[in-house]
Amino acid sequence: MKDATQDPISHSPFSFKLQKTCSHTHGRAGVFSTPHGIVETPRFMPVGTVGTVKGLTPAQIEATGAQMILANTYHLHLQPGEELIAKAGGLHQFMGWEQPILTDSGGFQVFSLSELRKIEEEGVTFRSPRDGRLIHLTPERSIEIQNTLGADVIMAFDECPPYPAERGEVQAATERTYRWLERCVKAHQRPQEQALFGIVQGGIFPDLRVAAARSLLDFDLPGYAIGGVSVGEPPELMYPVVEATAPILPENKPRYLMGIGTYREMVRAIAAGIDLFDCVIPTRFGRHGTAMVKGERWNLKNAQFREDFRPLDETCPCYCCQTFSRAYLNHLVKSKEMLGYILLSLHNVTELVRFTQRIRAAIWQDRFAEEFAPWLDEK
Amino acid sequence: MKDATQDPISHSPFSFKLQKTCSHTHGRAGVFSTPHGIVETPRFMPVGTVGTVKGLTPAQIEATGAQMILANTYHLHLQPGEELIAKAGGLHQFMGWEQPILTDSGGFQVFSLSELRKIEEEGVTFRSPRDGRLIHLTPERSIEIQNTLGADVIMAFDECPPYPAERGEVQAATERTYRWLERCVKAHQRPQEQALFGIVQGGIFPDLRVAAARSLLDFDLPGYAIGGVSVGEPPELMYPVVEATAPILPENKPRYLMGIGTYREMVRAIAAGIDLFDCVIPTRFGRHGTAMVKGERWNLKNAQFREDFRPLDETCPCYCCQTFSRAYLNHLVKSKEMLGYILLSLHNVTELVRFTQRIRAAIWQDRFAEEFAPWLDEK
Repeated sequence: MKDATQDPISHSPFSFKLQKTCSHTHGRAGVFSTPHGIVETPRFMPVGTVGTVKGLTPAQIEATGAQMILANTYHLHLQPGEELIAKAGGLHQFMGWEQPILTDSGGFQVFSLSELRKIEEEGVTFRSPRDGRLIHLTPERSIEIQNTLGADVIMAFDECPPYPAERGEVQAATERTYRWLERCVKAHQRPQEQALFGIVQGGIFPDLRVAAARSLLDFDLPGYAIGGVSVGEPPELMYPVVEATAPILPENKPRYLMGIGTYREMVRAIAAGIDLFDCVIPTRFGRHGTAMVKGERWNLKNAQFREDFRPLDETCPCYCCQTFSRAYLNHLVKSKEMLGYILLSLHNVTELVRFTQRIRAAIWQDRFAEEFAPWLDEK
Repeated sequence: MKDATQDPISHSPFSFKLQKTCSHTHGRAGVFSTPHGIVETPRFMPVGTVGTVKGLTPAQIEATGAQMILANTYHLHLQPGEELIAKAGGLHQFMGWEQPILTDSGGFQVFSLSELRKIEEEGVTFRSPRDGRLIHLTPERSIEIQNTLGADVIMAFDECPPYPAERGEVQAATERTYRWLERCVKAHQRPQEQALFGIVQGGIFPDLRVAAARSLLDFDLPGYAIGGVSVGEPPELMYPVVEATAPILPENKPRYLMGIGTYREMVRAIAAGIDLFDCVIPTRFGRHGTAMVKGERWNLKNAQFREDFRPLDETCPCYCCQTFSRAYLNHLVKSKEMLGYILLSLHNVTELVRFTQRIRAAIWQDRFAEEFAPWLDEK
């Protein structure tokens, strides 16, 4: 077992200290330091799209053990707008969350949600789904918006090729992503307060991913992400990509796998050397009456829970499990009561954060490969 | 100023200790003791219709200063059913609220919400809005359900005449309510654990109300309520009714004005000698994006709040006011985010509880009539 310790990036409030690495996998435990506190990795990050993790107060999010949350630049730009948030004192102050925040670049939403988009070397033009006006987003504009929002980590503006896509199309998007990263780095005005992460694209082609990852090293960024792995492709195509890419990224920088957050995907990605994850599923499932329990998904509306007076998970420390029964949750979900969605969201976020905390603890004790073998071996 | 202290009801876990009375009004401060703790009166009670105060966790409700909440027998009988709640260990255990609870009798909902109801001396027959089955509710059945739910205070099953109604019709309903109360008292199986309150009916006719209140004294109940004052009649017809009725009710028992909870109505009713209130408006307003602030109603969607970075009410100790700005609430409400409804509900419940707490403090210092003169004098 290595016990590599890296020096913090000099003169920077950002550092990634590698604490332990696994003997049998590329799994690693580390601490990412930011101006708003530390993130102990591996760690799941809940998503607060428009500056709220849906249904949860900041106090409740903190109690889940989440140390860093994600917010979406695209959505915040449309409503309420970054200028308003800057006037409020920045995103932390606006939303009442004093721990680290990461904003994405808006690229993924532009490519996946917007209609009438036009992609050029300069940037992307799309029609706002709110009011129909044309919006022009470029690497410079994305960074400017993110500088104005003030998150601890900001993401490069990248081109996400669709899935499926021809190799040539993916390669062109990957090369453009590189050129856009150069422009993002140049545009970034607050490097002492905000860490800019680069994003590896390359679709389902491991060799394109490897080449893209190598090229990103030119920039010596404070962190790196693997993007575009959840836009529709099957998980079995994702693993080779992550496994080929992660080891190329610098050991002393955090590695973030964007948009991923199922149990199995996280275990496999952590084994490949990934540190950070985000996903909307815990809150989305919560709003649909679904609980994530011990690797399973339970529809709480199901009659089997009607007279089940046990907590969702007797080992879970969350307020939902410590206070309420499955029968009460069944009643709330059947009655379409907001509290049901709140409690399930709270439990689900806690569950995924705890899952990554358990992996972290296992890595510390070098028992990760053994303890999580069922997940790792699964095809 | 009187400083009357009443002995607890002998051998009963229920008592009402009158602590202070006002020199200039019938306003009074007291402590109502129940098996699940005390209620310092006057006090507003939030409504948890189906066993949840909409959008709020029990921990959040406790933080509002609410000491007692209301739940609806009619709704809980339909879903999930009182037998399930009994199996869960009773309503407190089921919903995770360890402080006092009051259940209504179901009568008000049967008369106001149900279709196809048939009212006879025996009881009421109506069609379940859930599954269309016919349900027969009698005084005995209402008490049986409430005994099974296990709230600290249970309410007599009464006939609520509609508004407007002929005097003769109201008188008949009032007399039937008396006969039904006799049956409720006889049916009540858990008087050592649950206090049965009688309800004064009599519509908008003060003399009928006075007669009804006098007749209820026959029963020496642990508490009394004034019912049927919010079924559509204008407030100016309510005040004479409350002012004529309250002084007749025993001084050493809590007095509860059902379904009332605006600032002005509460001030006027407290001046008449009322101790307890309930109303759905703070959570209903919250779910519609409306904040109750210093006697006003603010639609948080309004553009005037877009760049208003002050808290809703800088004097309010609630989590919403201590953490978030009007601008953030405007953003949440415009974005239709659940957190907006949650935070506004939290603030609104806190606001009404605090309002009654401020009145209580003013009564202690015998400054109620003076401090609340603008509310009391208003026509």
